[in-house]
Amino acid sequence: MSNLPKLDIAVFEGDGIGNEITEPSLDLLSAASEQTGGFELTFKRLPAGAGTYRQEGIALPKESLNAARAADAIFLAAMGLPDVRYPDGTEVAPQLDLRFEFNLYAGVRPVRSVAGLPPVLADPRAAALDFVLIRESTEGLFASRGKGVVENDQEARDTQVITRPVCERLFDFAFDLAAKRRAAGRPGGVTCVDKANVFTSFAFFRQIFDERAALHSDIDADRAYVDATALNMIRRPWDLDVLVTENMFGDILSDLAAGLIGGMGLAPSADIGDEHAVFQPCHGSAPDIVGQGKANPTAMFLSAAMMLEWLAERHSIADCARAGAAIRSAVDQAFGDGGLIPADLGGSAGTVQVTQAVMTALRTPR
Amino acid sequence: MSNLPKLDIAVFEGDGIGNEITEPSLDLLSAASEQTGGFELTFKRLPAGAGTYRQEGIALPKESLNAARAADAIFLAAMGLPDVRYPDGTEVAPQLDLRFEFNLYAGVRPVRSVAGLPPVLADPRAAALDFVLIRESTEGLFASRGKGVVENDQEARDTQVITRPVCERLFDFAFDLAAKRRAAGRPGGVTCVDKANVFTSFAFFRQIFDERAALHSDIDADRAYVDATALNMIRRPWDLDVLVTENMFGDILSDLAAGLIGGMGLAPSADIGDEHAVFQPCHGSAPDIVGQGKANPTAMFLSAAMMLEWLAERHSIADCARAGAAIRSAVDQAFGDGGLIPADLGGSAGTVQVTQAVMTALRTPR
Ligand SMILES: CC(C)[C@H](C(=O)O)[C@@H](O)C(=O)O
Ligand SMILES: CC(C)[C@H](C(=O)O)[C@@H](O)C(=O)O
Repeated sequence: MSNLPKLDIAVFEGDGIGNEITEPSLDLLSAASEQTGGFELTFKRLPAGAGTYRQEGIALPKESLNAARAADAIFLAAMGLPDVRYPDGTEVAPQLDLRFEFNLYAGVRPVRSVAGLPPVLADPRAAALDFVLIRESTEGLFASRGKGVVENDQEARDTQVITRPVCERLFDFAFDLAAKRRAAGRPGGVTCVDKANVFTSFAFFRQIFDERAALHSDIDADRAYVDATALNMIRRPWDLDVLVTENMFGDILSDLAAGLIGGMGLAPSADIGDEHAVFQPCHGSAPDIVGQGKANPTAMFLSAAMMLEWLAERHSIADCARAGAAIRSAVDQAFGDGGLIPADLGGSAGTVQVTQAVMTALRTPR
Repeated sequence: MSNLPKLDIAVFEGDGIGNEITEPSLDLLSAASEQTGGFELTFKRLPAGAGTYRQEGIALPKESLNAARAADAIFLAAMGLPDVRYPDGTEVAPQLDLRFEFNLYAGVRPVRSVAGLPPVLADPRAAALDFVLIRESTEGLFASRGKGVVENDQEARDTQVITRPVCERLFDFAFDLAAKRRAAGRPGGVTCVDKANVFTSFAFFRQIFDERAALHSDIDADRAYVDATALNMIRRPWDLDVLVTENMFGDILSDLAAGLIGGMGLAPSADIGDEHAVFQPCHGSAPDIVGQGKANPTAMFLSAAMMLEWLAERHSIADCARAGAAIRSAVDQAFGDGGLIPADLGGSAGTVQVTQAVMTALRTPR
């Protein structure tokens, strides 16, 4: 028996390609933790998702939810299937339920270019993007999920909700992240993205941002409209640092941002609350490529790195942070010389090739 | 006295660079109409905007509104100034009032690459983009403009509204446009962009789309989520044809789309209803560059071309359509050899140079 700190990870494979990318990701996590030696990981597989809903009539069984609550972190692959829906026609998406259930208000979506992969933007400055979009993940328009109404088949409504307590925590989170980035050598500024020029709820959002900015006066604070931000993400993404926005806007902008670095196959995410956090790739369950060995595990690898770094900070385990950094470096090294192009980026490398290359890089860092 | 058909154009210069791009645009319109010879244009300048609000306490005076109603078309430069706001903090934006007042439900935003300008995306296929985004412009989240609430400084709400009559007309408009594009040699399909997987109002939006698609069964109909569409616009914009979406989503996606062709300086728009229409560049009043001679008039030129083509169809004036096509060709010719790069695209050509080049091309087409 060891005295090493043990971290329990709740693992949701979910649907579609979920299983295909989960196995390699757990192998990579185990390898990284063994290599650093300072902590142990245990994985507990839990059922949830569209497949579970189809079989059991419930998308997120209570035992799964309770086990997730008891775990140190939640690691999720992908959930949902286009043809499995609730009676009202909306999708079975228990990843949303987790965000609401555990108050995971800060949806962190880092956008970092991986060298060696085909460029998306023509401007060479886009080869070194490094910014973070924070999507509020428990309210905004999504507060209306399951609550929208249709009247007489004539008019439908959904209501966006912005609350002070959530905004305060969200903006503080953004300023703290910017401070950490600044300590690591990045410019470290925060931009509030909204539509305060038209909507009362966004004027309120921006007002709270201004209040919190005043409490973090050492960090640059900026404000931008969501439409101008969409344009700016294409025109000058190398100038961006930390962006913070409402749930629905964040959903749109984070896919746009992922497009800038080559798509969802490279885009990790974390949904973070004060007590719990879920780490998952931004992409969906991609039922169209299931069983073909094509699924790109990179976004889940990078989500694993984010999970280790979050656990490291929370439990003060330096080796855990080292393991996270090692995974990120291994990804960079695997793709760095330009010889490994995943299928979703127009190349031929499938799940196995990408996994082997990253594993090799982890074991033999340059 | 001539017997030529006369078309009365209500002209709003608005604010900021509005005046600087309006003069050249009216000159170009006059030149194009004289050249074709089959119709006459008269321009009536009307006050409205942030400057008008500051001076007169009203952003869109009644006389301006009535004159616009009486005109055959409304031509608008740019409105709004960051420091001129209504008491609730939202911006003075009478262009929004016009959309509501005249039921201009179809916000048409064509995205067409102009050859000879610097590429934005690395993929060479992006040099020939040609798609149209239709943004519903009278309801959606914008139905809440001026109606949002804040309670006890704790919680704010805005409500999105989707109605059947507006959707039906909107989708019919989209299918008609796709049919015209198909007749002109484009694929001609319509994609409904929504978030029907999460929201009741968007499931309703999509349901009405499906109904209207069934009535236009000769046109390909597709459905996509807004987040996936943002990604797709970056990954495969050359595959897009006609997209139709809700007001707020359209606001974001149309700026994104403009970014793909080099920015707002090249992005025209039309807000079209059953009786009236407003034509205006997508960009704002750019107070930061006022008086520097840098404003790019191209988006307003292309909006003028859209206006002529809309008038041509409405009044069956073939020469009016020819004049519109001539303006578009003149823009292509002016930029085509790569020697004219406007200031907003990283070059040195200002308002005068761009205008002269387009005027010359109009007079001496190749
Ligand atoms: C699957 C879907 C409901 C989900 C969302 O909109 O949040 C997804 O797009 C995401 O970004 O996590
Ligand atoms: C100025 C602003 C209110 C306006 C809008 O949001 O509609 C603008 O962004 C536009 O796209 O026309």
